[in-house]
Amino acid sequence: MKTIQAGILGGAGYTGVEVLRLLLRHPQAAPVCITSGAYAGRKVAAAFPFLRGHTDLVFESPEDAAHMRNLQNCDVVFCATPNGVAMNYAEKLLDAGARVIDLSADFRLRDADVWRHWYGQSHACPQLLDKAVYGLPEINRARIRGADLVANPGCYPTAVQLGLLPLLEHKLICLDNLIADVKSGVSGAGRQANLATAFGETADSFRAYAVAGHRHHPEITQELTRLAGDAVNLLFIPHLLPVIRGIHATLYARLRTPPPSAADLQEIYAARFAAEPFVDVLPPGSHPDTRDVRGSNTCRLAVHRPGDGDMVVILAVEDNLVKGAAGQAVQNMNLMFAMVETAGLDGLALAP
Amino acid sequence: MKTIQAGILGGAGYTGVEVLRLLLRHPQAAPVCITSGAYAGRKVAAAFPFLRGHTDLVFESPEDAAHMRNLQNCDVVFCATPNGVAMNYAEKLLDAGARVIDLSADFRLRDADVWRHWYGQSHACPQLLDKAVYGLPEINRARIRGADLVANPGCYPTAVQLGLLPLLEHKLICLDNLIADVKSGVSGAGRQANLATAFGETADSFRAYAVAGHRHHPEITQELTRLAGDAVNLLFIPHLLPVIRGIHATLYARLRTPPPSAADLQEIYAARFAAEPFVDVLPPGSHPDTRDVRGSNTCRLAVHRPGDGDMVVILAVEDNLVKGAAGQAVQNMNLMFAMVETAGLDGLALAP
Amino acid sequence: MKTIQAGILGGAGYTGVEVLRLLLRHPQAAPVCITSGAYAGRKVAAAFPFLRGHTDLVFESPEDAAHMRNLQNCDVVFCATPNGVAMNYAEKLLDAGARVIDLSADFRLRDADVWRHWYGQSHACPQLLDKAVYGLPEINRARIRGADLVANPGCYPTAVQLGLLPLLEHKLICLDNLIADVKSGVSGAGRQANLATAFGETADSFRAYAVAGHRHHPEITQELTRLAGDAVNLLFIPHLLPVIRGIHATLYARLRTPPPSAADLQEIYAARFAAEPFVDVLPPGSHPDTRDVRGSNTCRLAVHRPGDGDMVVILAVEDNLVKGAAGQAVQNMNLMFAMVETAGLDGLALAP
Amino acid sequence: MKTIQAGILGGAGYTGVEVLRLLLRHPQAAPVCITSGAYAGRKVAAAFPFLRGHTDLVFESPEDAAHMRNLQNCDVVFCATPNGVAMNYAEKLLDAGARVIDLSADFRLRDADVWRHWYGQSHACPQLLDKAVYGLPEINRARIRGADLVANPGCYPTAVQLGLLPLLEHKLICLDNLIADVKSGVSGAGRQANLATAFGETADSFRAYAVAGHRHHPEITQELTRLAGDAVNLLFIPHLLPVIRGIHATLYARLRTPPPSAADLQEIYAARFAAEPFVDVLPPGSHPDTRDVRGSNTCRLAVHRPGDGDMVVILAVEDNLVKGAAGQAVQNMNLMFAMVETAGLDGLALAP
Repeated sequence: MKTIQAGILGGAGYTGVEVLRLLLRHPQAAPVCITSGAYAGRKVAAAFPFLRGHTDLVFESPEDAAHMRNLQNCDVVFCATPNGVAMNYAEKLLDAGARVIDLSADFRLRDADVWRHWYGQSHACPQLLDKAVYGLPEINRARIRGADLVANPGCYPTAVQLGLLPLLEHKLICLDNLIADVKSGVSGAGRQANLATAFGETADSFRAYAVAGHRHHPEITQELTRLAGDAVNLLFIPHLLPVIRGIHATLYARLRTPPPSAADLQEIYAARFAAEPFVDVLPPGSHPDTRDVRGSNTCRLAVHRPGDGDMVVILAVEDNLVKGAAGQAVQNMNLMFAMVETAGLDGLALAP
Repeated sequence: MKTIQAGILGGAGYTGVEVLRLLLRHPQAAPVCITSGAYAGRKVAAAFPFLRGHTDLVFESPEDAAHMRNLQNCDVVFCATPNGVAMNYAEKLLDAGARVIDLSADFRLRDADVWRHWYGQSHACPQLLDKAVYGLPEINRARIRGADLVANPGCYPTAVQLGLLPLLEHKLICLDNLIADVKSGVSGAGRQANLATAFGETADSFRAYAVAGHRHHPEITQELTRLAGDAVNLLFIPHLLPVIRGIHATLYARLRTPPPSAADLQEIYAARFAAEPFVDVLPPGSHPDTRDVRGSNTCRLAVHRPGDGDMVVILAVEDNLVKGAAGQAVQNMNLMFAMVETAGLDGLALAP
Repeated sequence: MKTIQAGILGGAGYTGVEVLRLLLRHPQAAPVCITSGAYAGRKVAAAFPFLRGHTDLVFESPEDAAHMRNLQNCDVVFCATPNGVAMNYAEKLLDAGARVIDLSADFRLRDADVWRHWYGQSHACPQLLDKAVYGLPEINRARIRGADLVANPGCYPTAVQLGLLPLLEHKLICLDNLIADVKSGVSGAGRQANLATAFGETADSFRAYAVAGHRHHPEITQELTRLAGDAVNLLFIPHLLPVIRGIHATLYARLRTPPPSAADLQEIYAARFAAEPFVDVLPPGSHPDTRDVRGSNTCRLAVHRPGDGDMVVILAVEDNLVKGAAGQAVQNMNLMFAMVETAGLDGLALAP
Repeated sequence: MKTIQAGILGGAGYTGVEVLRLLLRHPQAAPVCITSGAYAGRKVAAAFPFLRGHTDLVFESPEDAAHMRNLQNCDVVFCATPNGVAMNYAEKLLDAGARVIDLSADFRLRDADVWRHWYGQSHACPQLLDKAVYGLPEINRARIRGADLVANPGCYPTAVQLGLLPLLEHKLICLDNLIADVKSGVSGAGRQANLATAFGETADSFRAYAVAGHRHHPEITQELTRLAGDAVNLLFIPHLLPVIRGIHATLYARLRTPPPSAADLQEIYAARFAAEPFVDVLPPGSHPDTRDVRGSNTCRLAVHRPGDGDMVVILAVEDNLVKGAAGQAVQNMNLMFAMVETAGLDGLALAP
């Protein structure tokens, strides 16, 4: 089988480097091109010494026409750029025949007005919004296989959707009162010089943020609504964890009457995800640890019905840079190119 | 004014040492006696080098009659023992004329049967349960002043109660559907050799625990019910944070109809706590950080009504060892002995 | 006694806020003025919520003439500015009658050429270099009392000098082969938006830096040489610790022949620092923890002569923001204004 | 090629689980048996959830004869037991035809008396000490290939020896005055309930330990002496880092006269390790980060000659659980069974 030639647009951020880390161990795909404005001309392994000995790639400039052609010649381009960048590149990449997996938010929202509201600028490429396929394989596998443009889900949306999926599909919960109390490691904010994510400002501390509104909220609501087939009202409260990688979502929903038993809930989850390679439903009574998915593409779920009451509580963990970003992007690539879905993604978590 | 002679029963745990740390800077009280079975005979400052130069106390054995008499001769004894110990000492301390502030759970629950259920043993001193005053000054100030035996609240219960207090007093929320998504630093588990709290098992990670039931749940429900004057149904989900000190409670409640405006809610909180020296209501839109109360006796609250919807979200932070334990105990002592309530508690938080 | 009116120039960095934290609890000094270009006009307690309820100060602009007069009217001004700033303010502050304690490096080096070499610019005020007194009280107490301009030592230099002081004074070690393997918490790099000190780049990791040369090296060598009365050759290797506060210096020196016994060494250290309020010599065989000085002005030392060999190993810890910066500055202020040296500095370390 | 059947004796500690993690991705070896007294009968993936879906192994009891036979039937047994255990198993495993790689200290010291001195008990199997081959492939590759019993080096000794190796082989340094200032992550202390390694006791702090003597000291001295062909005098000062995985060794040595230039030193290191798959010599001026080897079998080195003086400073980093333990053990297995040396060890570090 031919090796897939892959490019990475915006390769000096945490998600871009993570795509590279995964591609370097992929049996059927190879990273052949990686760009970064700030690092252009610099060896990737010089900027990221953990890659020394594993790649000779040099960062290219996305502004350079020759480099742009390198990207266009790829079979697939991962856009790991800040929000608002990929929408300026997607069309010309697609026109050149490359397929595109965008890890930013540019193609996640169906409505360009909503996008403008949350991202503070007009969408540069609204005509592609309909063409983009939302890249959550557990929901959209068939459509992803045929997609040329995949909007890779956000890290929070992945955890929240996977956690609520069986409840919505089976219409087990009231839709007007969902709560997602979510906690993210600091790498979720990206690799940047920023006082708010400085060690001295985040270590040995914890806080909520963006309670009044977070950009992942409309994305989650859009997708949950689609899943539920009805309006969903979700309270979404993010927090900043003093860990590097990891998201923990604690999800609360009221069960419809009559509520299923805890055992039934467990069974529904187990059945729903039995064939999913990257969703692991834990035994009853479990509490997943973020470290147990560190570096892996697995999302782990635990289902609780405390006190056999009318509330269901789902605990969902993932590595925000893997299943919440780069790993899911590679999973999507595997689907798009008819490879084994788990190719290059069988790495074990690194614990402790 | 005479200096209050204070004893500490169980002084080698985190809360016991924290009581000592505070008493060593108290203008009107002095630690004169501290016990520890494991450290008996050892200088406190040798076991806890951060106290070198600040105390000459030597750990005494609680089993030694002479040492017991030292405790009994105190004006007040802080019990910082594991659950199930203070109930064996309280009566003889009280009989000897010492007043008792118990930082463990032994006298927090009104019902000895409930206590036995959660703590796995019969209560050794049920006759004192009625006499014990629940030591949350913001609710019970008057009764604490006259108390001989104070049951110092748990760390989680303090944050949850302070966060919900104005909503309950003003009957603004539905009582059947409260949610407390709480996160605690590792010191909340005490100072002990325990694999579950080892650095390698908790650092750079995050998880929920005890979703099926936590000992602080009945305590919170008991007190919230008393406050509300009606049955309260609370979902209580604790999590373990990789920080040393700090609790963050994210509290969710449904507002009754018609809901108060966000501004009204803010005003209600500000008014309720205006005279409270250790509760600080932040400006609208705030997100308190646990580090901003590290080492201080302050609980900070922020009030949110996201999207002007029907849910109110309260963020509450405290240092679990101070306002959640030792600081609150000293605050109670100040009340019991008619001292200025803030005496010895004016230390600023240590940030960063 | 009259309260000392204190100003802080550059009050929005870690050391400036730390000076404020200490002054707010000082019995004989009060912070009356604090400047910050970036935060001008903003309430200090809004920018630093841990100070809410403890100060009404508002950041002033150092560019505003009225604000500058406020500083000039102070009895003492702490300069907590980046290197290269205080040298532009010192003369006009001194001329106005304020005494100056500079926490930056501007007046630490005696030689303006050496300063220019290490700080990359010409010194703007070389005429004051001779007037400035190096503010290490354990060495310079008498001169500090009479000083109008104090150059507060760097954080590394404080730990290294205190650690080596008795060995040099007693001429016990060879001077040509000293090694300081030093480790600093991240707050030592200041409060700034900087990728190198981001949580994702520093947490759960460790590395050396600036092995080829660090700005604190010439400062240490200058002072050690003065102490030794002879040229000192020091290898100085700094490392970045994933802790917020704290410096640990591991100091290596070869003992002259005949070497003193370990007991003699211990005694020499104990005697040298017996009267020092902020240097604590630990018992033989000790290993000081950085956390045991967290937030306090104490430097703790342990003296080792491993295997009774010819090498002496000194372990020195301090809080880089306190004894390594703001606490030492307040100690210097106390000396300059004939107050009790420990005034405002009796806070216990916060451990755990 | 036949798959190597591998057993793990003592599989519930950090190094045992790490051996398992690596074997589960090894192309030519398979873990078929794993023991743990404490976890006997429990599924490995239940005790270590990050392995869910990747292994069906169940912990066996080393006391059970049938289980012991399972181990004896293995081609190779990794002993990841506490010190003093493997020496009771090695002979019967060898007699049964299994080859043994001991990750504990039982067979590292050549002299049973020295062993007894440092490990506090008589050696149970001194007759095998001569047979055991010290498993540092960079020195002993040929002997390891033919060994039946390999003594896998300690984590500190690996970093120190690799760091000093070229200097000793080229006789570039004085042997009487080496200094190893080493810093280890907490996982180096093993997976155990221990107050000293509790999160609350180690997080956000740093300290030296065992300055008077550490068990890895005689091991390092023994091997360096062998390498140098002459007595080596090393000062070895370990410190405890608040990181999970990672060792950083800062090594100091005095260059012999005439000293080689910095460029020569760099070249000597580059040449010495050019063919080594797991030793990476960084470019001049580098400072390796422990995170850049997290989870990988690579040791990274940087060579410095500060100020072109007579001291050479080597910075060496490794993951204490991989190159410092389990990875090196697998590397040794690969050599012993004539597999590709890097088989199963090509995992990239996980950074950030």
